[in-house]
Amino acid sequence: MQAIVGVEHVLTDEAAQPYLEDWRKRYRGQALAVVRPGSTQEVAAVIKLCYDAGVPIVTVGGNTGLCGGATPDSSGRSVVLSTGRLNRVREIDTDNDTITVEAGCVLQNLQEAARKADRLFALSLAAEGSCTIGGNLATNAGGTQVLRYGNAREQALGLEVVTPQGEIWDGLRGLRKDNTGYDLRDLFIGSEGTLGIITAATLKLYPVPVAQRTALLALRSLPDAVAMLSRARSGFGPSLTGFEVMAGHVLEAVVKLFPQQRIPFDGDSAKSAWFALLELSDSESAEHAQTRFEHVLGQAIEDGLVLDAAIAESVAQSKALWHLRESIPLAEAELGKSVKHDVSIPISRIAEFVDVTNAALQTKFPGVKNIVFGHLGDGNLHYNVSRSEDQTEQELLGLQDQIYQLVHDSVHAFNGSISAEHGVGQLKTRELPRYKSELELRLMRQIKVALDPKGLLNPGKVLYV
Amino acid sequence: MQAIVGVEHVLTDEAAQPYLEDWRKRYRGQALAVVRPGSTQEVAAVIKLCYDAGVPIVTVGGNTGLCGGATPDSSGRSVVLSTGRLNRVREIDTDNDTITVEAGCVLQNLQEAARKADRLFALSLAAEGSCTIGGNLATNAGGTQVLRYGNAREQALGLEVVTPQGEIWDGLRGLRKDNTGYDLRDLFIGSEGTLGIITAATLKLYPVPVAQRTALLALRSLPDAVAMLSRARSGFGPSLTGFEVMAGHVLEAVVKLFPQQRIPFDGDSAKSAWFALLELSDSESAEHAQTRFEHVLGQAIEDGLVLDAAIAESVAQSKALWHLRESIPLAEAELGKSVKHDVSIPISRIAEFVDVTNAALQTKFPGVKNIVFGHLGDGNLHYNVSRSEDQTEQELLGLQDQIYQLVHDSVHAFNGSISAEHGVGQLKTRELPRYKSELELRLMRQIKVALDPKGLLNPGKVLYV
Repeated sequence: MQAIVGVEHVLTDEAAQPYLEDWRKRYRGQALAVVRPGSTQEVAAVIKLCYDAGVPIVTVGGNTGLCGGATPDSSGRSVVLSTGRLNRVREIDTDNDTITVEAGCVLQNLQEAARKADRLFALSLAAEGSCTIGGNLATNAGGTQVLRYGNAREQALGLEVVTPQGEIWDGLRGLRKDNTGYDLRDLFIGSEGTLGIITAATLKLYPVPVAQRTALLALRSLPDAVAMLSRARSGFGPSLTGFEVMAGHVLEAVVKLFPQQRIPFDGDSAKSAWFALLELSDSESAEHAQTRFEHVLGQAIEDGLVLDAAIAESVAQSKALWHLRESIPLAEAELGKSVKHDVSIPISRIAEFVDVTNAALQTKFPGVKNIVFGHLGDGNLHYNVSRSEDQTEQELLGLQDQIYQLVHDSVHAFNGSISAEHGVGQLKTRELPRYKSELELRLMRQIKVALDPKGLLNPGKVLYV
Repeated sequence: MQAIVGVEHVLTDEAAQPYLEDWRKRYRGQALAVVRPGSTQEVAAVIKLCYDAGVPIVTVGGNTGLCGGATPDSSGRSVVLSTGRLNRVREIDTDNDTITVEAGCVLQNLQEAARKADRLFALSLAAEGSCTIGGNLATNAGGTQVLRYGNAREQALGLEVVTPQGEIWDGLRGLRKDNTGYDLRDLFIGSEGTLGIITAATLKLYPVPVAQRTALLALRSLPDAVAMLSRARSGFGPSLTGFEVMAGHVLEAVVKLFPQQRIPFDGDSAKSAWFALLELSDSESAEHAQTRFEHVLGQAIEDGLVLDAAIAESVAQSKALWHLRESIPLAEAELGKSVKHDVSIPISRIAEFVDVTNAALQTKFPGVKNIVFGHLGDGNLHYNVSRSEDQTEQELLGLQDQIYQLVHDSVHAFNGSISAEHGVGQLKTRELPRYKSELELRLMRQIKVALDPKGLLNPGKVLYV
């Protein structure tokens, strides 16, 4: 290893520690060493060496995953491969609207490189200051602009991948249309480092919107939020780039904990059962966006669908509205540990799902509280459960597996997904057989065995057998 | 077979003939029988029977493919499975913006079902009156709106697939986010019936645009068309739903052959070297679309980038402009047989590609004529070659393989694709090894063997060994 990457890039003992634990400190493992290759060729040589020696490889990017997908197991047999040094922007092609970057490039740096070329790279999520594009692609990350631009998968045109045998697949194509065989690209994307190691990607760029406008809507109910989403999609078309929802009591918790923030409504509207945060990205002007907002939202208020609307009049006001939404996880943390779910449901059934699941939780675990918010535009809810008044945190966490099962059974009954945007990692592998058909798991295993017959890439992740 | 699908749905002899030849009459094969199952369960039972008996299966939808992917080989050992009776719309969910349809549903019927529910199904292509959505997905079809909405792959959220062993995979999910394992959906899409048989799909719907406006631009050169595309993308944002280009002499041939059509310019502009056809889909109003067009195109004319612009003032005028574009293949046919290429190139290099390839053709085959048009917004050109003045059609077709190789070698040198939107079928299987790495072909073969170990699904297509 040292001969391939240089002595200083093979970490052991103390230097290796940060790579052996996930950032939420839920998973901890052991490894023979952490290796930090500086080029795709070095990645390939490292993998080849491991393949010949039968040593498992766990790849890590920014270590911001939420499912333990980048943390080695406790056997201590694995090598951890960090993509941190593969962080170059290789090429920006503005006429083709593409950027080619290495896997270890931090998402925010990638966004900034695009912005410098007067282009938008459209993936945006909470961890963007430290997550890497390689990890985003390996987990098919989502975020707040999926409604308009799609998940990480939809940003990628081409990939460079090192196979489990240490060969380099150059699939770095900057083409919108290419029908010359099986879609290897999308197979590697979302496979969480179990089929190959993504070392670089060619990604789509978009024009930078001329203006953005944000609005907070006060709503009577979640069905009204769904009806408003439908109106917003037809009224704004593709200019609608964000549609988040938050239960009223969740926002109340935010402003109670962070008194410098406020819900921008007076009287009853401030106590609405639900709120929606809308973002409009306009290719004309701020005035045009404002007029559009006033037109569509004015009609919705007139029709009684929306109780009240606060349209941000400045960038500062817009940031304040987003800050309310982004403060929810912090407020949650202040309220104590909760049992978290990252689920998606067909949008038409999402309100019924919340009703039915809330009721089932109250029957089985009386008094627990629901913290419901998320990306309604994508059907993606963060449906979290916190302790009842007379429960301790430990008591709640003792029920965690039962709560997971109740919520995920309900998700399944509504034709939803138990992992909308965070992946499987090691957190959800044992739940997959409950919710996926034996056939689907067998197809996945057949592909895994075909590409990685020795089972050396990220063993135990996604599929646990 | 008769016991599974009914005597009348197993065709042999004369009744089977239409299924044994592709519509362009380039390929003809033989088959044991043509079977027309009426449900997914019947498809599964038919496939299981074939699997147990070791009989190959060739699936056909509307038989509109351009690469012979749905035509059996001449061995007469195969069964042809027609999806024609699987033509129901199973569900439209307007709140979720999804439609679930069976594979044999004709694309135009699917578009109309969506339109009746006040939604847009965004895939649109020349064969839409007879091609089926199953075939569109199996070949990952493109068309004229890819610029905005993506290829067939990007329209699909979920699939129902019958495996080579005759099992039914229910992957009919209507979710925008689902990260619970490998992307089987996108692996089946574009695999041309070689990995599984798509029997149904859950597809995305969009709001119907409030207004559409079309314009024809007269341009000096192909680089100017590329520069205009870049301006149109930033000026119109996602409202830009079409950007086609046509060489001037190609349009001249159209109006010469079809005198009722005309190029809507006077004087020199009518003889421009290139033309571009733009379509704007507006979520506000026809007036708004018109104003946007006038603003962006007016600036481009002022800057000297565009020589002249004709904006359609009515639906009839708009249709007349599209009719010019759509008449090109007919005009080509009138001019005699040509050697056709369906290629894509990074947009930034497309002008250079055309220059270099035109010159190479003239050097090797003096006097041949280039017929160049296509979906510039996707980097997809139909780059066709017709005979020189002193050549017969037969002489040109005798050079076909040499012309393919020259053009495709050039495409490869420009990092392009030799099949942008038509697939591989049996037409291009033998070219793949020249342009794809041995590693990529091996990965494809490993997947094929893993899922279809007996090699019974559409043998000889996509991969010929």
